[in-house]
Amino acid sequence: MTDEKPKNLPLRALRWLIYGQPLATQQYDLMCLRKLLALPVFCSDAISSVAYGPQQIVLTLCLAGLWAPQYSEIFNHHVSLIASLIVLVLLLVAISYWQTIFAYPGGGGSYIVTKDNLGTWPGLIAAAALLIDYVLCVSVSIASGIQNLKDVPLLSGLHIENHLVLYCMAGIAFMTWLNLRGLRTPGLLFAIPVYTFIVMAYFMLILGLGADFFGWPLHKEYINQMVPPQAQTNLAHTLTGVIGPVGLAVLLRAFATGCSALTGIECVSNGIPAFKEPRPKNAALTLIYMAIILGTIFIGISMLSSKLHVIYWEHDGISAAAVIDQISGAIFSKSGSFSVFYNLTQFATAAILFVAAQTAFADFPRVTSILAKDGFMPRQLTQLGDRLAFDNGIMALGVLSTIFIVAKKGSVDLLIPFFTIGVFLAFTMSQIGMVRHWLKQKGNNWQLKLLINGIGALATFIVLIDIVIEKFLDGAWLVLVLMAILLFLFHTISSHYKNLALKLTITPESLSNIPHKNTVLVLVQGVHAGTVKSIDYARSLCNNCQAIYVETNPDNTADLKKKWQQYFPDVPLVVLPSPYRSLIQPIMCYLDEFHKEHPDQTITVVIGEFVPNKWWQSLLHGNTGLLLKLAFLARNDVIVTDVRYSV
Amino acid sequence: MTDEKPKNLPLRALRWLIYGQPLATQQYDLMCLRKLLALPVFCSDAISSVAYGPQQIVLTLCLAGLWAPQYSEIFNHHVSLIASLIVLVLLLVAISYWQTIFAYPGGGGSYIVTKDNLGTWPGLIAAAALLIDYVLCVSVSIASGIQNLKDVPLLSGLHIENHLVLYCMAGIAFMTWLNLRGLRTPGLLFAIPVYTFIVMAYFMLILGLGADFFGWPLHKEYINQMVPPQAQTNLAHTLTGVIGPVGLAVLLRAFATGCSALTGIECVSNGIPAFKEPRPKNAALTLIYMAIILGTIFIGISMLSSKLHVIYWEHDGISAAAVIDQISGAIFSKSGSFSVFYNLTQFATAAILFVAAQTAFADFPRVTSILAKDGFMPRQLTQLGDRLAFDNGIMALGVLSTIFIVAKKGSVDLLIPFFTIGVFLAFTMSQIGMVRHWLKQKGNNWQLKLLINGIGALATFIVLIDIVIEKFLDGAWLVLVLMAILLFLFHTISSHYKNLALKLTITPESLSNIPHKNTVLVLVQGVHAGTVKSIDYARSLCNNCQAIYVETNPDNTADLKKKWQQYFPDVPLVVLPSPYRSLIQPIMCYLDEFHKEHPDQTITVVIGEFVPNKWWQSLLHGNTGLLLKLAFLARNDVIVTDVRYSV
Repeated sequence: MTDEKPKNLPLRALRWLIYGQPLATQQYDLMCLRKLLALPVFCSDAISSVAYGPQQIVLTLCLAGLWAPQYSEIFNHHVSLIASLIVLVLLLVAISYWQTIFAYPGGGGSYIVTKDNLGTWPGLIAAAALLIDYVLCVSVSIASGIQNLKDVPLLSGLHIENHLVLYCMAGIAFMTWLNLRGLRTPGLLFAIPVYTFIVMAYFMLILGLGADFFGWPLHKEYINQMVPPQAQTNLAHTLTGVIGPVGLAVLLRAFATGCSALTGIECVSNGIPAFKEPRPKNAALTLIYMAIILGTIFIGISMLSSKLHVIYWEHDGISAAAVIDQISGAIFSKSGSFSVFYNLTQFATAAILFVAAQTAFADFPRVTSILAKDGFMPRQLTQLGDRLAFDNGIMALGVLSTIFIVAKKGSVDLLIPFFTIGVFLAFTMSQIGMVRHWLKQKGNNWQLKLLINGIGALATFIVLIDIVIEKFLDGAWLVLVLMAILLFLFHTISSHYKNLALKLTITPESLSNIPHKNTVLVLVQGVHAGTVKSIDYARSLCNNCQAIYVETNPDNTADLKKKWQQYFPDVPLVVLPSPYRSLIQPIMCYLDEFHKEHPDQTITVVIGEFVPNKWWQSLLHGNTGLLLKLAFLARNDVIVTDVRYSV
Repeated sequence: MTDEKPKNLPLRALRWLIYGQPLATQQYDLMCLRKLLALPVFCSDAISSVAYGPQQIVLTLCLAGLWAPQYSEIFNHHVSLIASLIVLVLLLVAISYWQTIFAYPGGGGSYIVTKDNLGTWPGLIAAAALLIDYVLCVSVSIASGIQNLKDVPLLSGLHIENHLVLYCMAGIAFMTWLNLRGLRTPGLLFAIPVYTFIVMAYFMLILGLGADFFGWPLHKEYINQMVPPQAQTNLAHTLTGVIGPVGLAVLLRAFATGCSALTGIECVSNGIPAFKEPRPKNAALTLIYMAIILGTIFIGISMLSSKLHVIYWEHDGISAAAVIDQISGAIFSKSGSFSVFYNLTQFATAAILFVAAQTAFADFPRVTSILAKDGFMPRQLTQLGDRLAFDNGIMALGVLSTIFIVAKKGSVDLLIPFFTIGVFLAFTMSQIGMVRHWLKQKGNNWQLKLLINGIGALATFIVLIDIVIEKFLDGAWLVLVLMAILLFLFHTISSHYKNLALKLTITPESLSNIPHKNTVLVLVQGVHAGTVKSIDYARSLCNNCQAIYVETNPDNTADLKKKWQQYFPDVPLVVLPSPYRSLIQPIMCYLDEFHKEHPDQTITVVIGEFVPNKWWQSLLHGNTGLLLKLAFLARNDVIVTDVRYSV
């Protein structure tokens, strides 16, 4: 009988309509993802980063003065050097995680790997860093997605720029809703922009490199030619050198900012349980596909940027056209018959920046559920919702990212500095964990595997140090503060659960089985059919019954006592005076006294309640039953029994 | 022990600070009012009406064209005629109520008198009319009070005209708060403006009449000389005649609007229980004082208006200076050393218009409590609050008058038309009731008393007809609609209570005393110390116990069953599968089935609950106990017992 689906009440019908049909626990496989759908869900964040990673490199170099024609060779050299380094780190990280996936086929995020090999607290540090980064990932992605919509002429009527925070909140709510429907819904929906973006990116790269090779004509008028003077003066103070130590600083800064492209690589290894069988193989393949796509497009766009000598600058909230916009403009032209491809690229870029938040939505609830299972976060985060998603984690992510959006008023520029640091901390710790893993476990080719993870650890550590140095004052310090708070929370929650488990352990004393001596106190407000029901029930429980009446109006007492004698002569009636007309105060005092006099008795308080036929009728009653029950929430020394009679 | 005052918890301390110390029921006399304080509480409405009653007469006559110098004799004649008539009605009504007070020394408002003599439904009609008028009285008084503040130069920074509704709401909230502290607080506070107003009014009248008699100089420059042309054209269409039928219409209209001065006379007779002993005598004296003060000032101001030939007009939201402003200006001058009296008069007038709402606050809760006692309104309205006031009625009045304020955007002009009609309906019905009373009761001089009440009934009935005719289309129709709604509510509420009383009557069947067959079902979530407590308790209640476990995660079941066998081999464990992970659905289905199979059993469901030490710890638990209790609110076929264990 309980095998049936939940009953279809009107409210439930609405819930189905919004969230889809509830799924049974054994239908879990239905919600698992094939590689084709897993890519948009787990890799949107990583792939979207080609839209800003190369641009960050170009920006740093241009602001350092390298845009000037006389430096074009250094510029080209630096761009390709940094891009190659980043793709190298990407490959190292990807291969490391590929190894991790097979070593931890049940899901091997930074938390699990670090905890398993380096201990609980390092694991928690990695988890805290990662969680903060996921929250920021959602805030940044949604904010930049909404900011892109701002300039779409079709949507000018929405006045997005005036209600930025509101639209960001709506965007987060939308993502939250999609994910509450289970992972397949965002997978299906977001496959369109993600694959469109990938196809368009490759198309653009082929044409671009073909143009370079075969000398096809390009629309160079869409390439920026210079950094405007007001933006230049700004940077002249910070980075003027080209070679020597200052030139190295420029390189390091460009590398640090470009590494933001690597966020989101870790997600696949956390998400193994969401893949179709064979899970580890499918996950590993998805990871490799992602690395290839991300690597090739990243290198490709960086090469085109240097070949076309794309210049990018930002100053006081104004900026040049985005690098990807300049390149696609130059290749497809912004007018003419090929402009449809230009527009498609722009649309896909804007969409994938928004969709990048999906990766965090896929992974954050998973990480929190693992933490909750280990007792470091509230247990409700382990509950599967109607659609077998971790509903509470999804909603928590929605709320937390909204807080960042509101705090920073939806500005991408103000949110960016907090980003990336957590990911690289988690990367490093998980790589070190893997090194330790191979040292302990050994197995086939363990030396090679150790070497790969070792190099990975070193590379990500260097990047981490670089990022901390570059971003510390900009806001990275806040991430450290937030991490400390999170770790304190983990500790507090964990000790609460441990303490609870200790207290709930069955001890010989708790099993001593001294028979209860029960006293039943029935709270009465008058003599009527409801009282009869309550008293009859109380008498059936034990012989030790009392009726309690609070005398708020002494005029009625004599009449009540007479009636009581007539109907319930066997049950003593205790009349409590209440000079201040409080119902609750006298009862509590009586209970205290009763407890003192009879410490061996288990007191059961019976509360009788009317249940009206229609909801509005309850407005016509004092609802004393409800008030009493609320008041008794503060007392653990009595057992409260609710006898309800409909009238 | 229960004689002590409620414990002084922090929240309660705040409550004391705001509302004052709670009072015991037998301290009722403490809150009773001497005549000196009763006058500002119960008579502020009536006395304040001299500020607009004579003005309404002058307005009507001026708009009819009688302002012109050639009509000055007719103007003077009309003013004195109408003022005399109104004061005559006032005296009649006052004497009638004086008789009513002694006939109904326990409180004799329109509702009681009408119900007692004419029947329940006429009584309810009178009550409905009166209640609506009280609500409107608050809205109108507060709105006009706030409107007066608007022009005070000192308060110009508050931008009252831009936030009229907000300030009105604050005003109502202030009045509500004062009255929740008991009647003495507004009595003490409002004594100042009320007595200042009375003293200033008499001072002004004496000087004004002295000036007329002894020829003292007056500052005639502050008297309006004419109605501006744009205001004239407006009225020329409606009332142009001076003599004949149209002249009579003018007189009737002036009389009807002037009669708004009589609202509030009824309050004293409703409020008898709020007076100090001897209650009826004190109430009657207060009534007489009020009638004398109101009558003399009314006549005096009307006389001065005609003698000084004060002209007043309103047009499109602009108006002349108020009549009382012109008169006091002419007598005290707006500059020079006497201007302090002018300013004082202005302040007192503005204050008393605001304070007029107090009368409604004193009376509305009293009338609703009487109606609630008779079962026509929700019973909560009979409850006395901490300060022995009818708190619920006071708050209801606050809310209802706020609704009117919001609906009419705080505009006095839009609220005025609804006003007065209810009062005169209530007057008439109560007078007719008194006529009937004397016919039935007889007693000393009953013929004279009957004559007085008969004339009173006739007079107020004529005024009522006049008001209905004059105001019906302006908004009086809405009052009739509201009255119909109120009467429908009275009927619905009354039949609910009657029905309930019938169902709660103890019948031989309800006393049949068939012994209960109890089954106790304990909902368990695992085997721990809390489970031991719940099961021990259940076993102590009856031999027929079952444990119910909802299997949301089948992986844990085998372990649980083993442990169960170890600790509770005597209690059968029912495992309910829950494929959709719902906790509540399977339990409800099981209960339905159990009920079908064992219809003779009384089912008691035992819910075990942790009680954490700190409030935040409950965030770390699923709070399933709370959810289950909420779910069981919909079921009256089971008894729910709450076993709480603190950890």
